[in-house]
Amino acid sequence: MFDITKIRGDFPILARKVNDRPLVYLDNGASAQKPQVVIDAMNIGYSQEYANVHRGLHYLSNLATDKYEAVRGKVARFLNAGSEDEIVFTTGTTEAINLISYAWAAPRFQPGDEVVLSIMEHHANIVPWHFLRERMGVVLKWVDCDANGDLDPQAVIDAIGPRTRLVAITQMSNVTGTVVDVATICHAARARGVATLVDGSQAAVHMSVDVTAMGCDFYAITGHKLYGPSGSGAIYIHRDRMDEMRPFLGGGDMIREVTRDTVTYNTAPMKFEAGTPGIIQQIGMGVALDYMMGIGMDAISAHEGALRDYTHDRLAGLNWLNVQGNSTTKGAIFSFTLQGAAHAHDISTILDKRGIAVRAGTHCAMPLMDHLGVGATCRASFAMYNTTDEADKLVDALEFCHELFG
Amino acid sequence: MFDITKIRGDFPILARKVNDRPLVYLDNGASAQKPQVVIDAMNIGYSQEYANVHRGLHYLSNLATDKYEAVRGKVARFLNAGSEDEIVFTTGTTEAINLISYAWAAPRFQPGDEVVLSIMEHHANIVPWHFLRERMGVVLKWVDCDANGDLDPQAVIDAIGPRTRLVAITQMSNVTGTVVDVATICHAARARGVATLVDGSQAAVHMSVDVTAMGCDFYAITGHKLYGPSGSGAIYIHRDRMDEMRPFLGGGDMIREVTRDTVTYNTAPMKFEAGTPGIIQQIGMGVALDYMMGIGMDAISAHEGALRDYTHDRLAGLNWLNVQGNSTTKGAIFSFTLQGAAHAHDISTILDKRGIAVRAGTHCAMPLMDHLGVGATCRASFAMYNTTDEADKLVDALEFCHELFG
Repeated sequence: MFDITKIRGDFPILARKVNDRPLVYLDNGASAQKPQVVIDAMNIGYSQEYANVHRGLHYLSNLATDKYEAVRGKVARFLNAGSEDEIVFTTGTTEAINLISYAWAAPRFQPGDEVVLSIMEHHANIVPWHFLRERMGVVLKWVDCDANGDLDPQAVIDAIGPRTRLVAITQMSNVTGTVVDVATICHAARARGVATLVDGSQAAVHMSVDVTAMGCDFYAITGHKLYGPSGSGAIYIHRDRMDEMRPFLGGGDMIREVTRDTVTYNTAPMKFEAGTPGIIQQIGMGVALDYMMGIGMDAISAHEGALRDYTHDRLAGLNWLNVQGNSTTKGAIFSFTLQGAAHAHDISTILDKRGIAVRAGTHCAMPLMDHLGVGATCRASFAMYNTTDEADKLVDALEFCHELFG
Repeated sequence: MFDITKIRGDFPILARKVNDRPLVYLDNGASAQKPQVVIDAMNIGYSQEYANVHRGLHYLSNLATDKYEAVRGKVARFLNAGSEDEIVFTTGTTEAINLISYAWAAPRFQPGDEVVLSIMEHHANIVPWHFLRERMGVVLKWVDCDANGDLDPQAVIDAIGPRTRLVAITQMSNVTGTVVDVATICHAARARGVATLVDGSQAAVHMSVDVTAMGCDFYAITGHKLYGPSGSGAIYIHRDRMDEMRPFLGGGDMIREVTRDTVTYNTAPMKFEAGTPGIIQQIGMGVALDYMMGIGMDAISAHEGALRDYTHDRLAGLNWLNVQGNSTTKGAIFSFTLQGAAHAHDISTILDKRGIAVRAGTHCAMPLMDHLGVGATCRASFAMYNTTDEADKLVDALEFCHELFG
């Protein structure tokens, strides 16, 4: 069923070498590679079927529009949204969360209103709320994870107070791989009349997502991490919240009528999609979601869970290595430092010489890094096409680093 | 020098048929087709050279970053900007103008402050200013074009009053093809201390642009009209205006440091680019700009000028056809209606049966359509790869329409 050889064969870049070594791509938390079907879809789109969408009556425009709009239903199925009208296309999670901040939160929040965040948030789910703090006096309330990287959902629920308007929380940390029990949080928040935004940038890549069962108000995904093109993405917005939102970007498609003195707006979701969209990349994202659903999210989770366990055990054998976050339910993301003088950047450079791509730095999560007490880490983040052999290569290279710097 | 046969051969979609007829693509005002070099660049990007940018230290990330960042210089050369640090990447003109509205105008304008617009603006250069009218009482001042579609630059200058903060104006109408003398307007505005935003969505495709000589503060271009990928674009922002702007989208890359209580921002232009950008599509846009500069904007202008004259003369021979805007310096864009009952949508459908792609509707320019007194028009918009033979096919098909509905 889960044929790793076939899957690896689907991704052309995995056949290449880097620095004369076979590429071991473990930077999936930053962005995933693309299967040939996605690349082919974009090729066909640009070389045979390209036109602008929505505004044309000619053959190519209708064809592009049909293919583009079909992606909305794919996203709805991928997330188990109640309706494709609750799916708004975006360029990724960053734009999605800013959309919610500008179009829903900013016009509704008052000074002193609170946004509850976990300490594990990515900057994309922090900075838009810092804007509201800077610009209108909204208060950020932080909930810490424990030493193991786990986040107690009750601690988040307990942080909800009478001024709390939103809980904005990741479903999977991009640094530690921690999976958050967002369903418990969302249901408790909804019972208290508080909205929830879930950052699904990482989680949706690695596990089955069901926004209906989860009970969230907003759920953001980003196509380039989902084996789709750069600049693609979407956000699920609960119908009730959508009704509360004002427009964000102004331009074509999102209007009904424009005069010198007045403007009226289109119905949702088009109301929140201005101008010529990322036509071909969204079509590519649809193909990527089909590819994932074809393999099956449960099968992907099972493969990656085995990879996580294997890699965890191998890294645990390196007593000079510190891994940040060791939740047993975490995703296959390992952020680590080497004891001694080796800087994360040096380690990643040495790994790169062996064809192993990892990330080094603060991973757009400075508050978490500060909480963990680390300045920078290396991060190896796995995807469906990675193997235990690649985990072994990582460990071999880390042993080489240890000897070099030891 | 300008080898139309070679150029047509560079665009794979032009070899296809639509409804069993060779494609005659005259919907370039909505979006242009892509040359093979652009498609190839994206293919190579996704299949051999893909990684996220800016944050990695490994080979693929450095490679993608170098290619991505090189586009900034290409845009600067294409627009003759003083520095590539004055180029901000966007997803297109719509996002670009909203960026200026949210990040520069909104925090600086007061109720009663004025934005001067021409009646020929695209909704992308209207709705963001309507937002400021709705939300904070900014006043929109409109300047009309004459019956010929010409806009007197002095009329725009005369509209500048003591409360005027911005003149936001297109360099080429997407409906009539009118070319506006934006340089005269920008210099006069600057002399009065008023900023200028020029919508270059159409103009930059068809003529040489020099933002330094023009003297504008903001100049927006959109990649998908420039023979580049969907979701690509950039805006030139004069250094002085950039210093006045606060951040727009919050997230990764645009910050310097994030803590629980504070956030500090990156330097421009990164300050205005949040999250994972449209990596591959911007690389593709860079290739498209190289392709255009390789042919030469003057050569493209000369070819299209001849096409305009030829098409104008042929359409002028149809005394049952009304073309909107007949400026002698206009671009090769023809919006027209047929006398009698034929609706623009019906005409475009009939043309489509003959493989001719035109647009029908209000072209995201409702105030202009109202000013011209037309409900909807057909629009044939030419690009560098179009020919007089295609203009003949358009005229033949229009004659067929006239007979059908006459």
